[in-house]
Amino acid sequence: MNSIPIAEQHVDFLKTLLGARCLSGEAITANYASDHTEDFVFYPSVVVKPESTEEISAILKYCYTNDLIVTPSGARTGLSGGALADKGGVLLSMERMNRILHIDEENHQVTTEPGVITEMLQQAVREKGLFYPPDPASKGSCFIGGNIAENSGGPKAVKYGVTKDYVLNLEVVLPNGEIMWTGANVIKNATGYNLTQLIVGSEGTLAVVTKIVLRLLPHPTHDLLLLVPFRKATEACAAVSTLFMAGIIPSGLEFMERDAIIYTLPHVDDPPEILKDDHDAHLLIELDGFNADVLLQDAEKIMGLLEQYDIDEILFAETQAQKDSLWKLRRKVGEAVKSHSVYKEEDTVVPRYHLPQLLESVKRIGKAYGFHSVCYGHAGDGNLHINILRGDLADHAWNEELPKAIRELFTEVVKLGGTISGEHGIGLVQRSYMDIAFSEVQLELMRAIKRVFDPKNLLNPGKVLPDKPNV
Amino acid sequence: MNSIPIAEQHVDFLKTLLGARCLSGEAITANYASDHTEDFVFYPSVVVKPESTEEISAILKYCYTNDLIVTPSGARTGLSGGALADKGGVLLSMERMNRILHIDEENHQVTTEPGVITEMLQQAVREKGLFYPPDPASKGSCFIGGNIAENSGGPKAVKYGVTKDYVLNLEVVLPNGEIMWTGANVIKNATGYNLTQLIVGSEGTLAVVTKIVLRLLPHPTHDLLLLVPFRKATEACAAVSTLFMAGIIPSGLEFMERDAIIYTLPHVDDPPEILKDDHDAHLLIELDGFNADVLLQDAEKIMGLLEQYDIDEILFAETQAQKDSLWKLRRKVGEAVKSHSVYKEEDTVVPRYHLPQLLESVKRIGKAYGFHSVCYGHAGDGNLHINILRGDLADHAWNEELPKAIRELFTEVVKLGGTISGEHGIGLVQRSYMDIAFSEVQLELMRAIKRVFDPKNLLNPGKVLPDKPNV
Repeated sequence: MNSIPIAEQHVDFLKTLLGARCLSGEAITANYASDHTEDFVFYPSVVVKPESTEEISAILKYCYTNDLIVTPSGARTGLSGGALADKGGVLLSMERMNRILHIDEENHQVTTEPGVITEMLQQAVREKGLFYPPDPASKGSCFIGGNIAENSGGPKAVKYGVTKDYVLNLEVVLPNGEIMWTGANVIKNATGYNLTQLIVGSEGTLAVVTKIVLRLLPHPTHDLLLLVPFRKATEACAAVSTLFMAGIIPSGLEFMERDAIIYTLPHVDDPPEILKDDHDAHLLIELDGFNADVLLQDAEKIMGLLEQYDIDEILFAETQAQKDSLWKLRRKVGEAVKSHSVYKEEDTVVPRYHLPQLLESVKRIGKAYGFHSVCYGHAGDGNLHINILRGDLADHAWNEELPKAIRELFTEVVKLGGTISGEHGIGLVQRSYMDIAFSEVQLELMRAIKRVFDPKNLLNPGKVLPDKPNV
Repeated sequence: MNSIPIAEQHVDFLKTLLGARCLSGEAITANYASDHTEDFVFYPSVVVKPESTEEISAILKYCYTNDLIVTPSGARTGLSGGALADKGGVLLSMERMNRILHIDEENHQVTTEPGVITEMLQQAVREKGLFYPPDPASKGSCFIGGNIAENSGGPKAVKYGVTKDYVLNLEVVLPNGEIMWTGANVIKNATGYNLTQLIVGSEGTLAVVTKIVLRLLPHPTHDLLLLVPFRKATEACAAVSTLFMAGIIPSGLEFMERDAIIYTLPHVDDPPEILKDDHDAHLLIELDGFNADVLLQDAEKIMGLLEQYDIDEILFAETQAQKDSLWKLRRKVGEAVKSHSVYKEEDTVVPRYHLPQLLESVKRIGKAYGFHSVCYGHAGDGNLHINILRGDLADHAWNEELPKAIRELFTEVVKLGGTISGEHGIGLVQRSYMDIAFSEVQLELMRAIKRVFDPKNLLNPGKVLPDKPNV
């Protein structure tokens, strides 16, 4: 099962440095070989679990000098394979870098290590009345550092933005072991190039993030949740921009097509009775703020706006338990579909008005190529997750034909002004499609930036950027 | 007066390409030689006024091949000299790239050329009920392209963020003439490195921006403006974080010390009667939103919170004319102080709780070095503008001693977690202080990124980044 071993002397060095926090050979457990992407299994040669920036610097410096590949890795909840050691080498697990260093209530900021679970960070600042909005579906297990690497989104992005919108400053270790900060702890900064935003979303290919300064907001005191059943899925998509054009900014606006709900209901305790025979899709709409009356007024406005569509009765979640149950349903879709079949997950994003066209394209291309898809996601952002089920597709159809269908779909997405990943990143699985989103001029710039940070191409090589085409 | 001429053949080429839209020699008027920084005058050798991306590409390609320096230039309202042709060469004036290309109401986006005046862009989208928040003091004359180059802020940044937070996608021309887009027209994007944010704030040193896609918001329907006189300036600074810690997010939170108001009152028509003898500083507090009652409730909360400070009676602006008059006062401070004396403007920014410390440091250092400063700015962001007046300072004090004082001040700012420019950029005048904000490791990364885009160092050379130190 294990990957290509690396020379014994290197393992010895790392064991001397880290003791029991360095694993090799049979000691490497299966959890270090997989994330949540398809059914991939890639064992690293060595797993290291540093506890400080200085240890990470020492590890990177050694690996850089000795030409060892390093893959930074968080909680491995990723959906594009970015944290997998597909070329063997050293897996740099950030699990021990798990301390919240300082909640700065006076400046609405938090400084944290990258190995803190996102939801625990949210809860810790919540106790001070503060709010860190980005909440990927995996928030109960993913690391904040992984969120930085992938520029994660989640339902609240529609009102509050994504991870990048909260990152003020990062301490990073460069591939050669140098330690630096990328910016300053301020919400306004016009001092030099924006290295902070270059690192956010770079999927661990430019540097290893070791400390994170995030800005926070006051925590909203009220919220409201509506579930709206539509008889036509494309109308659910169309309703999304109708709300925005009327000036509504929900704090969540999620789309689930019928199949997403059918697959997921058996996976939640006490499944809510929400699905009737004529429901084709649902919108889950959350409003939040500091004033209950305002939220009720907005909810009424929403109900008025939705009358133009063919909808069934709107469900108002009345208790916190009911809200939790609906959100759990939404968050479990990916996992539930996966338990049914291996799938490829596409993470398309378009300007939101074009969502109906995107959904139609997905279904049309699926029909032409004979694949079944389950669609859901952050409709308010124009971000549609497409789970393409393997089901009983033969190897040829899965490995040779499906990539053509995905290429066709991504080409449509880019034509609509969108791009191929909204929040899951490119990692391993989407890099061969990068030429659809970018020209060679753009890709060459990105490759050159990668070389600036990592001239020996040792930090998470072969992720994000496609190989240069043979000409 | 004119700068180093360039070879006649180059002027001929550019004149053939652009006709009367290429100026040289005596035809170059004084307005192309200055921006709003101190009293600088630098004449370019040639001024070109392209009207299309293709023309810009042709100009850059020619200049790149022929080793000609190019300085991109907007409305030249900048405060750090970034758009000045201090090395002569070609001044690329974007004044003819002045069309708003598409207001996309359905997706809350606008696509514009860079030479559109920011306020005109705001008005155009306002007519559709949409809102582009960033509003630098010079909004009536600056170009949106210049705002991108400098990552401009303005009063509304405290609630709505700065320019970078609205830029979705940019069409740029690279120094060698290649044309590309940096991203996609989506509000969520996890596809490759964030080239968009690398260009924003790069002050025209990496590429020339030719088209801009901005996201927009629904325009708030109500606002409210309060002017609060404080008897101690440091208490005005301290009150800023008091409001945020109570969960208030104003849409403007501006600080003006006594002298700022004294200098500015004679420069506005019908000056409001706001300054009493015992007023040491004022806070101008704006609230905006979609519900008048909520704003009133917030205003009451603010008044309660401010009771703990030594304040005089709060002025509520009751009419639009009164609001306009107060905002005009605030926006005119820079200009008014300048008419009094040449000054150096520092654009310090710290985490907002540290504002009182920053103000004290400014005054302490000023006293030690014998300079007079006028302080004002975006207190809600921790962004303090410091106009250091030349007054009757001798050349030695101005040219030799003052830089030492600024160095001391910036060192304090960085110690407080802040940085040396919040929204004015580094340009020409702050580059020699970059070593205070960044280590050589960071600066070398930035220099290497510059080389990736501009290997011949022809696009706005000598701006932003300091020269490599001799070791």
